[in-house]
Amino acid sequence: MPFRDVDVNEQGHMIIGGCDAVELARTYGTPLYVLDEDRVRQACRAYRDAFSRYYPRGLAVYAGKALLTTGVCRIVAQEGMGLDVVSGGELYTALAAGFPPDRIYFHGNNKSVDELRLALSEGVGRIVVDNLGELELLEALAREQGRTADILLRITPGVEAHTHTYIRTGQLDSKFGIPIAGGQGLAAARRAAESARLRLVGYHCHIGSQIFDLSSYEAAIVLMMEFLAEAQRATGVAAKELDLGGGLGIRYTAEDRPPTPEELVRRIADVVRQEAARHGIAAPALALEPGRSIVGEAGVTLYTIGFVKRIPGVRTYAAVDGGMADNPRVALYQARYEAVVANKANQPRLETVTIAGKSCESGDVLIRDLEVPPLESGDVLAVLSTGAYNYSMASNYNRFPRPAMVLVSRGRHDLLVARETYADLIRHDRIPRWLEEPAGEVAEAAG
Amino acid sequence: MPFRDVDVNEQGHMIIGGCDAVELARTYGTPLYVLDEDRVRQACRAYRDAFSRYYPRGLAVYAGKALLTTGVCRIVAQEGMGLDVVSGGELYTALAAGFPPDRIYFHGNNKSVDELRLALSEGVGRIVVDNLGELELLEALAREQGRTADILLRITPGVEAHTHTYIRTGQLDSKFGIPIAGGQGLAAARRAAESARLRLVGYHCHIGSQIFDLSSYEAAIVLMMEFLAEAQRATGVAAKELDLGGGLGIRYTAEDRPPTPEELVRRIADVVRQEAARHGIAAPALALEPGRSIVGEAGVTLYTIGFVKRIPGVRTYAAVDGGMADNPRVALYQARYEAVVANKANQPRLETVTIAGKSCESGDVLIRDLEVPPLESGDVLAVLSTGAYNYSMASNYNRFPRPAMVLVSRGRHDLLVARETYADLIRHDRIPRWLEEPAGEVAEAAG
Repeated sequence: MPFRDVDVNEQGHMIIGGCDAVELARTYGTPLYVLDEDRVRQACRAYRDAFSRYYPRGLAVYAGKALLTTGVCRIVAQEGMGLDVVSGGELYTALAAGFPPDRIYFHGNNKSVDELRLALSEGVGRIVVDNLGELELLEALAREQGRTADILLRITPGVEAHTHTYIRTGQLDSKFGIPIAGGQGLAAARRAAESARLRLVGYHCHIGSQIFDLSSYEAAIVLMMEFLAEAQRATGVAAKELDLGGGLGIRYTAEDRPPTPEELVRRIADVVRQEAARHGIAAPALALEPGRSIVGEAGVTLYTIGFVKRIPGVRTYAAVDGGMADNPRVALYQARYEAVVANKANQPRLETVTIAGKSCESGDVLIRDLEVPPLESGDVLAVLSTGAYNYSMASNYNRFPRPAMVLVSRGRHDLLVARETYADLIRHDRIPRWLEEPAGEVAEAAG
Repeated sequence: MPFRDVDVNEQGHMIIGGCDAVELARTYGTPLYVLDEDRVRQACRAYRDAFSRYYPRGLAVYAGKALLTTGVCRIVAQEGMGLDVVSGGELYTALAAGFPPDRIYFHGNNKSVDELRLALSEGVGRIVVDNLGELELLEALAREQGRTADILLRITPGVEAHTHTYIRTGQLDSKFGIPIAGGQGLAAARRAAESARLRLVGYHCHIGSQIFDLSSYEAAIVLMMEFLAEAQRATGVAAKELDLGGGLGIRYTAEDRPPTPEELVRRIADVVRQEAARHGIAAPALALEPGRSIVGEAGVTLYTIGFVKRIPGVRTYAAVDGGMADNPRVALYQARYEAVVANKANQPRLETVTIAGKSCESGDVLIRDLEVPPLESGDVLAVLSTGAYNYSMASNYNRFPRPAMVLVSRGRHDLLVARETYADLIRHDRIPRWLEEPAGEVAEAAG
């Protein structure tokens, strides 16, 4: 059984956002990403409401790298969220959608000069400075533009979260951030506090992804609040803001039991207040950067079943018309997914099949040992919880056009992303001038 | 030291295809894929010459999934190669480049109706039928179009190659092909031989990737030739062609010592002749499908070094302006690469650094512990052997525009693929009609 009940209509078809999934597949073709708008909004509100209740000076900042399109920017803007962008391309997308720049947080371990210039000239709300080199560069660019910028310093506290646990790392072997260890964090804070062009608003840390154990946040907060107190003593400047990054886990399968946003916010609020009191400093405003937990479970990918291959005594493979090109997470992270046969959503699951992707690569298998009603070519398979890190990581591997994405809400449906065409695949191809002779000619001579 | 000597000019800059790599980076920007045309042509000729010498009825068929652009199609067409395509998109690219359809082999475990129709109407040389369902479908479509098609049946012989070894698998747990085991292969051969619309030209198998041990090919040939003999007895039709797939390894690092195409062709020629004699059947024409060994070592990716982060006693990270978005092989396969600082190519390597990518993901580290001359921001890093499965698997993760690719030859350089722009990133984005109100509005009410 899938980890959650899916809504089913009278024809036995799965319903998403009030829309018949089989109809969506017919209307837009497959593979098709489907995003449930109301689930996205509910997730945003879960963070907002939790902050209102437990820590009013708190902002949820959507981490766009999970899924960013102009339409998604509109939704999260309307929900009063901030937006975490990690590149000039994400910033460009947000600006094109009319996202308020002052609610944008600009991240990245290796921002380019052009990206920093764009962030400065557009007046993004926070530039999260990753390292000392960037601090120097940003100050020089701000001076050049005659601007000032609000910054957070990215600090590596020495806590690394894993899904169900965390480790405290003494040494900080990370490409991200400025280690507390060895006094580097304090030195950077001093340098930033002295800057005439940069306003040091506070600090940021990020401890991991798909986190289930809230004690890893607690461990990070303890270290960060101690650092805030030390930095305040060293610089004379109190941190106004502490950004605790993202990482809250979601449900991919029945075994996954992540905490809710409310549980997360309540816990961090308690610990931040307690640690502020302990160190005798003012409790800072808080930011969180949820990505996966905003869009992950709101997404479903619809595929059409192609050939079904029964190898007696071994395994039945059912091939879909997509795979690692539209969902690389299985190949990248051995991620596990569950799925429902959308046109047989209320039929008993009598058969066990392995869902193979269409890419010419043995590793392109999406789901092993999925229980399904007896499968036939033409069935529509709905893979659940594909909203995060699917479209955003999709490639044209095997020169598959990338799928369309449709937004659904209360029976309405419309494109968020149009399907790529074959013509799109060669749009950027060029023939170097010295190869301009027709392809066949030399070949025939050679053959 | 890198695994191969790189050419260096008077300024101490690395040379590729007669072009100064530092100049290329300046002219086209970074990240930049660079493809050395003459190396591609040499690799094609190595196969062609080996076939001429050891097995004249042999064809090298370039596996386009490694790297396919219209320009690459021109080059391999001029070299008299066949072309293995695995999707409608690859077929479309080949046709757009004017590649002769009769030298195209069409692969895939889940070809769609539209793809098969396109292959039939364009008259591709071989459709490599993966399974019985496809055989039935293809026959029906051929009848519908009033055409006939030359096919190979993809057989899984029960040999699985790993880089330095292989295993013989009794059971055949693969999404690809028709197992010999259980009589499925013979049943498919009979069915194909009886078809009025499909001409059964022969058989195909593919045993793995990045193969170093030629005995795995030998093991597969022994099983396949036995199958050819049985199939001939069962159907009365002699196989005209045996396609042994791809998989020859290349050098990524100094430890890699792959066989040459000549060694491969000589070995398979010997074994095919010997097994044909043993079974008393005619030796079939041969095909091989090299991809990686045609373009892999011909490719180099140029990056600019950004921030260099020294964590005393731990590690020095040097960040580049690309990473897992343009080269996902490290994250996907833990692939190892070597690299040269292109503007310091003849300086002693006194420092050990870890090359971090620019993606907001801890796992985005391209090379661990690379020996380099003392590195500075602005240096140009050339990662070697990136011709295969880099551009073809590239994504827009983090909304990075995909890099340009430039073809170089004897001092000439010109674009094979134009760089994507920020505008390209949102080209397919759509705003659903009910979200058309300005982004800030509701947000302000909410905020």
